[in-house]
Amino acid sequence: MACIVMKFGGTSVADLDRIRNVAQRVKREVDAGNQVAVVVSAMSGVTNQLVKYCTDLDPLHDAREYDAVVATGEQVTSGLLAIELQRLGYNARSWQGWQIPIQTDDAFGKARIDGIDGSALKTSLDAGEIAVVAGFQGIAPGNRVATLGRGGSDTSAVALAAALKAERCDIYTDVDGVYTTDPRIVPKARKLAKISYEEMLELASVGAKVLQTRSVELAMNEGVRVQVLSSFQDIPGTMVVDEDEIVEKQNVSGVAYSRDDAKMTVRRVKDRPGIAATIFGALAEANVNVDMIVQNVGADGTTDMTFTVGKADLPRAHAALAGIKADIGYTDLLEDTDVAKISVVGVGMRSHAGIANTMFRALADKGINIQVISTSEIKVSVLIAAEYTELAVRALHTAYGLDAA
Amino acid sequence: MACIVMKFGGTSVADLDRIRNVAQRVKREVDAGNQVAVVVSAMSGVTNQLVKYCTDLDPLHDAREYDAVVATGEQVTSGLLAIELQRLGYNARSWQGWQIPIQTDDAFGKARIDGIDGSALKTSLDAGEIAVVAGFQGIAPGNRVATLGRGGSDTSAVALAAALKAERCDIYTDVDGVYTTDPRIVPKARKLAKISYEEMLELASVGAKVLQTRSVELAMNEGVRVQVLSSFQDIPGTMVVDEDEIVEKQNVSGVAYSRDDAKMTVRRVKDRPGIAATIFGALAEANVNVDMIVQNVGADGTTDMTFTVGKADLPRAHAALAGIKADIGYTDLLEDTDVAKISVVGVGMRSHAGIANTMFRALADKGINIQVISTSEIKVSVLIAAEYTELAVRALHTAYGLDAA
Repeated sequence: MACIVMKFGGTSVADLDRIRNVAQRVKREVDAGNQVAVVVSAMSGVTNQLVKYCTDLDPLHDAREYDAVVATGEQVTSGLLAIELQRLGYNARSWQGWQIPIQTDDAFGKARIDGIDGSALKTSLDAGEIAVVAGFQGIAPGNRVATLGRGGSDTSAVALAAALKAERCDIYTDVDGVYTTDPRIVPKARKLAKISYEEMLELASVGAKVLQTRSVELAMNEGVRVQVLSSFQDIPGTMVVDEDEIVEKQNVSGVAYSRDDAKMTVRRVKDRPGIAATIFGALAEANVNVDMIVQNVGADGTTDMTFTVGKADLPRAHAALAGIKADIGYTDLLEDTDVAKISVVGVGMRSHAGIANTMFRALADKGINIQVISTSEIKVSVLIAAEYTELAVRALHTAYGLDAA
Repeated sequence: MACIVMKFGGTSVADLDRIRNVAQRVKREVDAGNQVAVVVSAMSGVTNQLVKYCTDLDPLHDAREYDAVVATGEQVTSGLLAIELQRLGYNARSWQGWQIPIQTDDAFGKARIDGIDGSALKTSLDAGEIAVVAGFQGIAPGNRVATLGRGGSDTSAVALAAALKAERCDIYTDVDGVYTTDPRIVPKARKLAKISYEEMLELASVGAKVLQTRSVELAMNEGVRVQVLSSFQDIPGTMVVDEDEIVEKQNVSGVAYSRDDAKMTVRRVKDRPGIAATIFGALAEANVNVDMIVQNVGADGTTDMTFTVGKADLPRAHAALAGIKADIGYTDLLEDTDVAKISVVGVGMRSHAGIANTMFRALADKGINIQVISTSEIKVSVLIAAEYTELAVRALHTAYGLDAA
C-alpha cells in the first residue's frame, strides 16, 4: 500500500467550501487504495490577522509567543478537515506539531525541522486513519511551539513524506505547476512536466514562490518526489525530481525575477586587505543576508563595493555599515531599491558554454543595462533597473527558445 | 510572597485595547509583590466562530476535533497577553493546557480536570515569570486536546489556584460581583460583599451565570477563595468563601431564575413499583439530566409523573420515553417549554423555618400559580409560567427584605 503526502495551502482551504473540496481530493487518493497524510495551512487571511495582532501589540514581540499565536491557524484547519473527512465516512484525525512530534530547533519564527518521529503517525495510518497534520509548526526544545517561517507548510509536507517514506509529496496550490516563467508576464510561458531539484531550488531562491526554498532542499537531500499541482483544476502538475529522471535536459529551464532586493554601494572605501571581511562581517553580525557582490578595482587606493540585500534588511544593513565607517573610511553609502534581479536557470548549463553570453546579448539588444552579475553552476543572475523587469523576462524567454509554439 | 491567580473572560480580552487593559491589571498585582498566574479566555466572538465552523461542516462532529479547533482561541489570547506584558518590561510566558500539563478525563467537549502538575509553573513563577495560561483546556489521555465546556476557563483558574496553593483566585468579568438578584430585573438589587460556596453553587446551578458551576464545586472542595470582580471598574467585587467566614448570615441571600428548563408530564402511567426507575433509567441512559420531579397519587391505578429537563434535551427525552411506552403504558406525553424556575437561596435557611412559606405566600399574593416545587437544604425552587418571571423575582426580592434602601 503506497503512502502519499498531500499538502494544501491557504487559498486551497480558504473557507468551508474549499475545505470540502480538499476532502474530496483526499477521498479520491484514499479510495484509490493509498495511505494518506494531509498537511494543511491556515485558512487564507488568518495568519496575516494573527501576525498583525502580535505586531500591533509590539513590533519587537517575543518570537516564542508569536509562534504560539500564529501556529493556531493551522490547528484550526486540521481539525476542520478531519471533521469533514469523518462526515464522508472516513477515519481521520488531526495532528498538531507537538503531538507527532515534529522536533525543531529553537530558531523561533523560522525554525528548522530537526527530526520527525513518524512512528505514531505510521501506526495511525496502518490502522486505516487519514492523518490531517497542522503544517508550518513543530515543537522546539523546552516544549514550546515553533513555526517554520512563511511557506513552512511545504517543508512540513516534505519532511513528513521523508519520515513516512512516502511515494510522493503532492503540493496542491493556486497555480497548476511550475512554468518556464511567470505566465502573467509571458503568456507564452509553458508548464514544465518535470524539473530537477537543483533548478527548482534556484528558481525558488530567485522569486518563483511556488515552494519554500527549504522544502526543495529537504526534498533533494531526502530524495522525496514532489509534485506541484492545482487544488482547483484536475490536470497534471509539475514533478520535481532528480536530474537523472529528466531525459531531455534544457540548457535553460526557466526565467525568474525578483524585486525583493536592494542594491548598496560603499563608495571609495580604502582598498586594503581585509576590507571585504570587515564589511561583510559587520553585515553578517547584523543578521543581513548578502546576495550579489561586485568589487571594482580602484585607482587612487580606494575601491567601490556593491552588493544586494533584501529590501527589508536595508535599515539594519545601513546601521551596520554606519557603525564601521570610522574603520573602513568610505565617502558615501548609496542605496537603490529600484532594481530587479533576473535569473536564468538550467541544469543544461553545466555542459553548454555561451549561456551567459546569450543572456547579455539579449538584454543589450533591448537596451537594458546590467548593473551586477552573479553566476552559479546552473544559474546566471543580473541586476537591472526595475522598470525593465517585464521586458527583460520576455526577451530572455524568447532568446532561450522557451516560448510555447 | 503571595501567589494570585487572575482570570479574564472573553469580553475582558475582546480586542487589543482590552488586552492592554488586562496587562495593566496584572502589572498592578505584580508590582504589589505577588506571584501571578493569569488565565485567559478566547477573545469574545472567536469561540462562537470556531464552533460554527465545526457545526456547519457536520452537526455531529467528533468532539475530539471540535476541541482541537476551539481550544485555539485561548491559545491566541495567552500569547498576545504575554507579548503585551513583555512590552511593559515584565518576564511573561504563555502556557497551553498540554504544556503545564492540565490533565483531564476523555469526556471531550466537556472534560473534567483530573489533576494539574503545578511544578513547571511553580518553577517559572519562582523564576519571576508571569504565567499566562490558556483557559478552557487540558490534555486528555492519548495526548489529545480536551476542552472543559462553556465557562470552563473559570474552572481552569480555580484548579490552578488549588494546584499553586494560591492565596486568591480573582475572576474578572463584565459584571462587578454577585448580586442578590439580576439587577436588570430588580434595580434595587444589592451587590454581596461575600457569599458562601454553597450559595454560589445553588445560584450558579439555577441560572446566575457568573461562574461555571463546576468551578464553584472545585473551589469549595479545595478551599480556594474566589473573588468575582469587574475588569473595567476599579471597585471591590464579591468574595466567594467558606460559610464560616460569613458573620451575618442572611436567611435568603439571593433570588435566581432560569428559563432553560422544560416541563414534561407522563400522563396516567401504571402506578406500580419500579415505574420511576424505568422512566428515569431510560432518561439517564439517553444522557438527559432531570431536575425537579413530582409524582401525583392516582386513584384508578395510574399516576402522573411530572419533571423538568433542559430545553435542549427535550427531543432526546421525548424519544427515550416513546421507546418505553409499551413498557410503562402512559396515555399522553405533555411538554411545556413556557416555564421558568425561580429559586431563593440562603445558608440561613438551615436554621430558620418558614422560608418556603414566605415564598409561597408572596407568589400567591401576586396571583402566580406554582406548578412544581423542589427544595434542597439551602434552596427552594418553584416552576411557574414564564410570563411571570420578572414579577415573581421582584416580589420575592422584596419579601425577603433584599431591596436596597
